[in-house]
Amino acid sequence: MTTAPQTSDPAVVPDPTPELLQRAAAVRQAAMALAQCSDGQRQAALQAMAAALEADGEAILAANRADLEAASAEGLAAALVARLKLDRPKLEAAIAGVRQVAALPDPIGRRQLHTELDQGLVLERLTVPLGVVGVIFEARPDAVMQIAALAIRSGNGALLKGGREASRSCAAIHRALQAGLAASEVDPAALELLTSRGESLALLKLDGLVDLIIPRGSNALVRFIQDHTRIPVLGHADGVCHLYVDAAVDLEQALRVAIDSKTQYPAACNAIETLLLHQSVAPAFLALAIPAFAAAGVELRGDAAACALGVSQPASEADWGTEYSDLILSVRVVDDLEQALEHIRRHGSRHTDAICTSDPLAADRFLAAVDSAGVYLNCSTRFADGFRYGFGAEVGISTQTLPPRGPVGLEGLVTYRYRLRGEGHIAADYASGARTFRHHPLPL
Amino acid sequence: MTTAPQTSDPAVVPDPTPELLQRAAAVRQAAMALAQCSDGQRQAALQAMAAALEADGEAILAANRADLEAASAEGLAAALVARLKLDRPKLEAAIAGVRQVAALPDPIGRRQLHTELDQGLVLERLTVPLGVVGVIFEARPDAVMQIAALAIRSGNGALLKGGREASRSCAAIHRALQAGLAASEVDPAALELLTSRGESLALLKLDGLVDLIIPRGSNALVRFIQDHTRIPVLGHADGVCHLYVDAAVDLEQALRVAIDSKTQYPAACNAIETLLLHQSVAPAFLALAIPAFAAAGVELRGDAAACALGVSQPASEADWGTEYSDLILSVRVVDDLEQALEHIRRHGSRHTDAICTSDPLAADRFLAAVDSAGVYLNCSTRFADGFRYGFGAEVGISTQTLPPRGPVGLEGLVTYRYRLRGEGHIAADYASGARTFRHHPLPL
Repeated sequence: MTTAPQTSDPAVVPDPTPELLQRAAAVRQAAMALAQCSDGQRQAALQAMAAALEADGEAILAANRADLEAASAEGLAAALVARLKLDRPKLEAAIAGVRQVAALPDPIGRRQLHTELDQGLVLERLTVPLGVVGVIFEARPDAVMQIAALAIRSGNGALLKGGREASRSCAAIHRALQAGLAASEVDPAALELLTSRGESLALLKLDGLVDLIIPRGSNALVRFIQDHTRIPVLGHADGVCHLYVDAAVDLEQALRVAIDSKTQYPAACNAIETLLLHQSVAPAFLALAIPAFAAAGVELRGDAAACALGVSQPASEADWGTEYSDLILSVRVVDDLEQALEHIRRHGSRHTDAICTSDPLAADRFLAAVDSAGVYLNCSTRFADGFRYGFGAEVGISTQTLPPRGPVGLEGLVTYRYRLRGEGHIAADYASGARTFRHHPLPL
Repeated sequence: MTTAPQTSDPAVVPDPTPELLQRAAAVRQAAMALAQCSDGQRQAALQAMAAALEADGEAILAANRADLEAASAEGLAAALVARLKLDRPKLEAAIAGVRQVAALPDPIGRRQLHTELDQGLVLERLTVPLGVVGVIFEARPDAVMQIAALAIRSGNGALLKGGREASRSCAAIHRALQAGLAASEVDPAALELLTSRGESLALLKLDGLVDLIIPRGSNALVRFIQDHTRIPVLGHADGVCHLYVDAAVDLEQALRVAIDSKTQYPAACNAIETLLLHQSVAPAFLALAIPAFAAAGVELRGDAAACALGVSQPASEADWGTEYSDLILSVRVVDDLEQALEHIRRHGSRHTDAICTSDPLAADRFLAAVDSAGVYLNCSTRFADGFRYGFGAEVGISTQTLPPRGPVGLEGLVTYRYRLRGEGHIAADYASGARTFRHHPLPL
């Protein structure tokens, strides 16, 4: 299921088989026990997972070679083969990643609220695991290790579905992860691997058994999943990011930021797709930028004004809404900051947008008015990333408006619960006025 | 749209008309300006709304009388008429509620995270309004004033759709609210009233223009909306709450809590539907409880063991999953705490569940293992309420697993945004190792 089906017919999503329901229920049961484990027990489980991955290293690499051979026999695209490939350094980096997740602060059991509602009636709000997450991957087998580590660290069970091309790799990794858990106090049943395409589709109908779906794939896949499930989905459907170069600006700095935002990893969702140039700065900026982007292999597509200043390809209306994920950049000359804001409002995807300016008023206006998960001043949009934000690990990036929004770390895998402890308190006493709430905040 | 259509055919939800799209876009535009207003400006807008409601009091009450006459001519059910009725005291209470919301602490602009990623590269996470909320009400016209106040206080625009029976009341209230906003610095276009059933259905398809839908109605309505929109929905589809009376317990206290949890307001989602009794305490508890519930007008429906102890009506399997919203309570005798937990896991709706016990180990086990938004010890489930929790106002109660969960105050109407300020920082310098992140926490 690395490619989304082209139909939106609800009938494409089959009902879960009794066998899948039973397996999902087993994951849920194991997850409930896992949720009762201590911080130390969950950390030890991750260390055991890392050790088992090390012990099974040869088998995992061999399985990956078999996947690669099958892929080459099928004539898989080179980019897909590159993502599929798991060599010794990549495996070692993934195992180090599991240990890094083990070392992250415990996201569970944090008290977010603590209030004495009345004498002897005390309310707490505590973070708890979500329950079970369903994860649908594209070909990359290293992602399986990362997401499994994040799930167990945060006390969640996981139903994992890798791409068909990576089936042997995923199975070998899953075997090792379960062997690791078997040597810990966490039930190995907390990590289940789905293998068929039908199962990954039926996963979308496991409401009540799965609390969150995390698609790690194309925009089309994310949109397909959002349209076919009642389970919440953490993912971003689009990343059309902008850089606006204001009138008052350090031209060389702005160019450096523009080049980095486009080229540092053009396939990433946080790379820019459109450059907006204040009309007063456009001639000088493009005089520098056109050769610089050409040298970086970037094709520019301009509006009429940008073309008049030397951009050779004209942009069509469709360009402004396109996530190229490639070395292509559309360029528009705007009258002023307000027109840039209007352009972003109209064509942006509320992911990450940046301004380069030395004018503090323009900076404040941009930072306040752009309604995106990330709004940046004088720096590259490529910083929109959980690791770079200091979260230690990234569950995904979300372009939905509601929290969690933007790069999401472990907090995306936890929710909270209210605990209220009383001594026989009843609501009727407050309704009648016999007692009144005091709502006294207590230390967290 | 106070009753959910009986079909789940996607064709029942029409596409928005160009006119509705235009009106929704106007709300969004006004909401973006509103989001830039200061705390004081938003507070002043609420005071102006309250003053305008006072000034228009007679017109609002007259419109409500016309609605009531029409309802009585149509033979509307008495319960619905009671909810529809807006008299002087109810109107005054609603106006006081608007002023209370004005006085709540500003939910916007709170810094939740503040990190120096590197020298001169500073990340902040700040709360911001969601944008536009769509609210679908049942008959109660007073709810329109409350939700409008919450929306404006938190910097959001709102598309409001009241029940057909309350159409004159809602129109009069909406006129007053807009008149109030016109006397403030907030654009009256931020509050729009939808009037036709087709509009309230098409609202479900306004993704990109509406960020959250809040249904204030029946379970069937909430479920229908969840099935027919890609927009996030804040609401609870079910409230099947339990009270478990453990072996070691103060019988009289437990009975008081049980009576309150069932009868203090039986139509509420946080009223209990099922009483679970430890077998060792069931005989003594039921000897007290059967006459007490009978005196309170509550019909008990028991399993075989409860019936053997004097409960006269037998419960069917369907009873354990039913939200009666009425003076009916199912009663089951369980072997022990674990069987009670298993019952709640199987039949509960993860809303609010309580234990009465004097055994600290049983209390800890219950509070840790029950996976509901609220888990209570020795107090009534009726405390699951935003006002009682001290939130000052309630947007709704959510039974979804992801936050916001449980009773939701103003924080349910805000999200956050990351702001990153740099001095020309680019990602390539960190990828190459020329620079490294320091991730130094700064004061909030």
